[in-house]
Amino acid sequence: MLPGHAMARILRVVFPPANKLIMIATPNSFEPHSSEALPNSKRVYLPGLLYPDIRVPFREIDLHPTAGRNGRAETNAPVRVYDCSGPWGDEAFAGNARDGLPTLRQDWIFRRGDVQVCDGPVNRMDQDGPLQRRVLRAKAGKVVTQLQYARQGIITPEMEFIAIRENMGREMSRNGDALGRQHPGQAFGASIPAEITPEFVRAEVARGRAIIPCNINHPELEPMIIGRNFLVKINANIGNSSVASGIEEEVEKMRWAIKWGADTVMDLSTGKNIHATRQWLLRNAPVPIGTVPIYQALEKVGGKAEDLTWEIYRDTLIEQCEQGVDYFTIHAGVLLRFIPLTARRATGIVSRGGSILAKWCLAHHLENFCFTHWDDICDIMAAYDVSFSIGDGLRPGSIADANDAAQFAELEAQGDLTKRAWARGVQVMNEGPGHVPMHMIHENMTRQLEWCHEAPFYTLGPLTTDIAPGYDHITSAIGAAMIGWYGCAMLCYVTPKEHLGLPDKKDVKDGVIAYKIAAHAADLAKGHPGAQYRDNALSKARFEFRWEDQFNLALDPETARQFHDETLPQEGAKTAHFCSMCGPHFCSMKITEDVRQFAAEQGIAEEEALKKGMEEKSREFTKKGSQIYTPEELLGE
Amino acid sequence: MLPGHAMARILRVVFPPANKLIMIATPNSFEPHSSEALPNSKRVYLPGLLYPDIRVPFREIDLHPTAGRNGRAETNAPVRVYDCSGPWGDEAFAGNARDGLPTLRQDWIFRRGDVQVCDGPVNRMDQDGPLQRRVLRAKAGKVVTQLQYARQGIITPEMEFIAIRENMGREMSRNGDALGRQHPGQAFGASIPAEITPEFVRAEVARGRAIIPCNINHPELEPMIIGRNFLVKINANIGNSSVASGIEEEVEKMRWAIKWGADTVMDLSTGKNIHATRQWLLRNAPVPIGTVPIYQALEKVGGKAEDLTWEIYRDTLIEQCEQGVDYFTIHAGVLLRFIPLTARRATGIVSRGGSILAKWCLAHHLENFCFTHWDDICDIMAAYDVSFSIGDGLRPGSIADANDAAQFAELEAQGDLTKRAWARGVQVMNEGPGHVPMHMIHENMTRQLEWCHEAPFYTLGPLTTDIAPGYDHITSAIGAAMIGWYGCAMLCYVTPKEHLGLPDKKDVKDGVIAYKIAAHAADLAKGHPGAQYRDNALSKARFEFRWEDQFNLALDPETARQFHDETLPQEGAKTAHFCSMCGPHFCSMKITEDVRQFAAEQGIAEEEALKKGMEEKSREFTKKGSQIYTPEELLGE
Repeated sequence: MLPGHAMARILRVVFPPANKLIMIATPNSFEPHSSEALPNSKRVYLPGLLYPDIRVPFREIDLHPTAGRNGRAETNAPVRVYDCSGPWGDEAFAGNARDGLPTLRQDWIFRRGDVQVCDGPVNRMDQDGPLQRRVLRAKAGKVVTQLQYARQGIITPEMEFIAIRENMGREMSRNGDALGRQHPGQAFGASIPAEITPEFVRAEVARGRAIIPCNINHPELEPMIIGRNFLVKINANIGNSSVASGIEEEVEKMRWAIKWGADTVMDLSTGKNIHATRQWLLRNAPVPIGTVPIYQALEKVGGKAEDLTWEIYRDTLIEQCEQGVDYFTIHAGVLLRFIPLTARRATGIVSRGGSILAKWCLAHHLENFCFTHWDDICDIMAAYDVSFSIGDGLRPGSIADANDAAQFAELEAQGDLTKRAWARGVQVMNEGPGHVPMHMIHENMTRQLEWCHEAPFYTLGPLTTDIAPGYDHITSAIGAAMIGWYGCAMLCYVTPKEHLGLPDKKDVKDGVIAYKIAAHAADLAKGHPGAQYRDNALSKARFEFRWEDQFNLALDPETARQFHDETLPQEGAKTAHFCSMCGPHFCSMKITEDVRQFAAEQGIAEEEALKKGMEEKSREFTKKGSQIYTPEELLGE
Repeated sequence: MLPGHAMARILRVVFPPANKLIMIATPNSFEPHSSEALPNSKRVYLPGLLYPDIRVPFREIDLHPTAGRNGRAETNAPVRVYDCSGPWGDEAFAGNARDGLPTLRQDWIFRRGDVQVCDGPVNRMDQDGPLQRRVLRAKAGKVVTQLQYARQGIITPEMEFIAIRENMGREMSRNGDALGRQHPGQAFGASIPAEITPEFVRAEVARGRAIIPCNINHPELEPMIIGRNFLVKINANIGNSSVASGIEEEVEKMRWAIKWGADTVMDLSTGKNIHATRQWLLRNAPVPIGTVPIYQALEKVGGKAEDLTWEIYRDTLIEQCEQGVDYFTIHAGVLLRFIPLTARRATGIVSRGGSILAKWCLAHHLENFCFTHWDDICDIMAAYDVSFSIGDGLRPGSIADANDAAQFAELEAQGDLTKRAWARGVQVMNEGPGHVPMHMIHENMTRQLEWCHEAPFYTLGPLTTDIAPGYDHITSAIGAAMIGWYGCAMLCYVTPKEHLGLPDKKDVKDGVIAYKIAAHAADLAKGHPGAQYRDNALSKARFEFRWEDQFNLALDPETARQFHDETLPQEGAKTAHFCSMCGPHFCSMKITEDVRQFAAEQGIAEEEALKKGMEEKSREFTKKGSQIYTPEELLGE
């Protein structure tokens, strides 16, 4: 989870154990066109200073010149955007899913000298595949987490990689042109610096306010950071295909999700091929992969929650640590004494993981084994640098249950677990709701910050109403944008199929785009430096009728173009100068020029107009009624 | 407008005068299936007390019983929802678009004794049609507005109709069952009463805090109210078909929009058949119809803004008053002295109406004739009870231009115009932006409330980022939900085609549903009494696996069902008891029963558990660590 992620919820609400799902596991086609390049874009890399061998990827969107009315064209600088797609988004990359991705971080990991190669297990995608990679583990007594390094004052290559990646918008905004202008934000106490330095990354990780999920057995990963002083991130859930033939489809789903901007991906697969599916995903994932290990543990006991044991769960954790999973959802805050608090709820326990553990607790009348073995779990995760995503198994499944005693009791418990994990050097984020009306969202954020000591918050939506199944990407994008603004570090997407069925390719994309909107709206509202650059560039293109540029700067160029084509399919409509479209009588660019000329005639150069405080003047003249002002009046003379 | 409504903006940005649009005016099919009834729903009517002849429509959704585990079924009361679809949503209604709707309000209007039948013009849909309706006008010296009646202490039938309509959720919530439970809201100073009485409606209209748009020449209209102490409303824009054969399609678009919940519809048609199109719409519209009269005036002068005159504009207003238009967007706040404030903007003037008037002002070097003739306009509108929707012609067209001097100068001017209109007895609302990042939305609302003296606010979104063309129903639903929460009375929808092309039927529906979500999320957050009832009913159905009820209670039952069918097409999946779906090992209802039994075994009846302050107990126990609690502890003994 998010114990009840989009897909987890579907699993719980709609579905039997996944082996019954075989027939329906491949809805709409997943033909592999995630690899098609986005239009007018190319991959560029920036090197590090501390670590010159690192190459930080961006997508650079080339723009057309502005056609000046006097015939002179004016260049528009290309726009760089954060790019989650990894080597799959680089046209120069010729790999394939069977071979997996290059091991970007391998050297960085070995250079630290604190890991050993395990004798036994090997990571490979299948018996015949060429890939055989030895499993790594911390040397005895070593904690190999980014948190541990950060506390020791070490700036890792991962940290510099992230600093460069997060600074992208700031760099562009410093070009000095009008596109760098930005409104001051309102950040609710966040401490977003003017520049993200590697040292700032280190400091934020050291104090637990940000995490870098990066298992030492996932060297393919391009480092990213989750924390409220960085760009707001989004997660996409995939999984569920339980037949061997479905594995490549899952890989394609993951590639599809990251193409559109998913920062992390959770694999919520169930069923018999859960291990193999995850192997393929990890070997092909440039983003962190999260899982809910209790799902696999439950498979191992035939789906009977009461048959779970600590030993089975522990072995599952180790198995997934060895494979390279980057963060685990663990519902250790579902305590036996909280369970009665759900008795009067409208919708009980809606988290799949939460339900499994609640059932176990009730069957044995014992405390949750994830809680009683918390220190053991920490020590396992510290040996691979797997991060905690402490689950919210009692989160509300309806507006009625929002912010209730059960939810907040668990949140407080999450805070205690957070401190204990930190004490053992493990990185932590906390999961949050769920279904919450708008006016009760802020309380979730403030309590989490206080009770969980500023560990990053990671929420599912929240959905702001229950009445729109089929549109819960929208009901939840509203809540996600708001909690992102208030300080939530990562937003778990919800697809249109939430509560209803399994997301297909269109649903995955719709969910990712809705959440990119929410995350970006939050960045703008927080005043994240440079965030507004892309808005400014797109609006300039729009105003100048550079249609192609407007499409290409959009989160989804394909849909923007397609919608335009539906009305005006002619190619000429996209390249003609606007005046041939609007005719000589009505053209907003022409009106703007008239406006500027008028302002100039009145003796007000544009710059002067600004300098002279037009706003105040304007207010003053508003009071005077309807007479035409004179130049003297306008200048305040 | 909203001078730059979704469609108006498209018109401005993309299109020439509408006569060039003929070939593209009919995108996707508009086959008339707006009349298909929503599932398991029937029309019911409630009578008035003051006016026993009024019949207030609701849609009543029948639910299935809850299947108790002991075999006893438990009835679920039907849910009533606000219904905008008028007679078109009543299966007993056998009319058609050619005959138009019954004249619900005809008697109410005549009974007041203050109108006269005009000699000249006649409202009819075409030369051959049967409908010939004499035009009404106020008797000399009379002001026939709801505002005027309200000030005189008169409760009109319109007001009682509205009181019953708005009270619907409260009535259901008073049944006393758990579905009536609701979170206290946060209403930002709104004064939402426990019950909406006819007198409350009157008082709100009298002080200008709400409007009832209802032209005396639109007797087909079912009264509705726009004001921040009532349910948040939404508007859908249609229009643009300029060929005769397209008129029935426009009627169908309107019926389609109100079927899904549009509270008002703006007709933004342009081109030669603008009068006839509007005639058909009005004669078939049970909701208020708004227009932007400058569009038609511009057609009359061949699209040349500088050729506009006050006389042409005045005659256009009268023509539309006589037809029955319920509210006019008039950009009287675009003053000559504000125009230079747009010179340095990223995106200049993006409102079509604003651009037309700016161009006229600049061409003649004269003040906006809508402003200089404001009192004349008021007197015209007072004679038919047409409401003002004072346009925001200088609203921001990009994040960069949000809340700038031009925008706020115009907003302040809107406030002055509001007071002048009130002085002449005319109802007023104010239009607002546009493109605004989340953290700057609240300022729009507070300034509007202050400067415009609490007249209702009516905003276009606002869009919270510029970077997602193709998804602006989502970028704007975020802003719309928030400003609705803060106090905005009506939200003008934005469709996915915004900035890109002409909305087709799917786009209209997507826009309406996104805005129903935003409006309802706002009602929940404001704590509008009864608003949560539908959420509670749907969540109960969801939790009890009453799939059909979950679909039928959704804003869009068709899509909810279709999404479910994509994964589990078998009919049995919708009627089978959940236990046959989840299997014996994993069933959340079963777990909930286990939870309740467990709570009972511990000596805590559910009611007692609540009474004894489980929340505080829970907090206390959280501190104690992981040991299993005893019944004594749990009860605090």
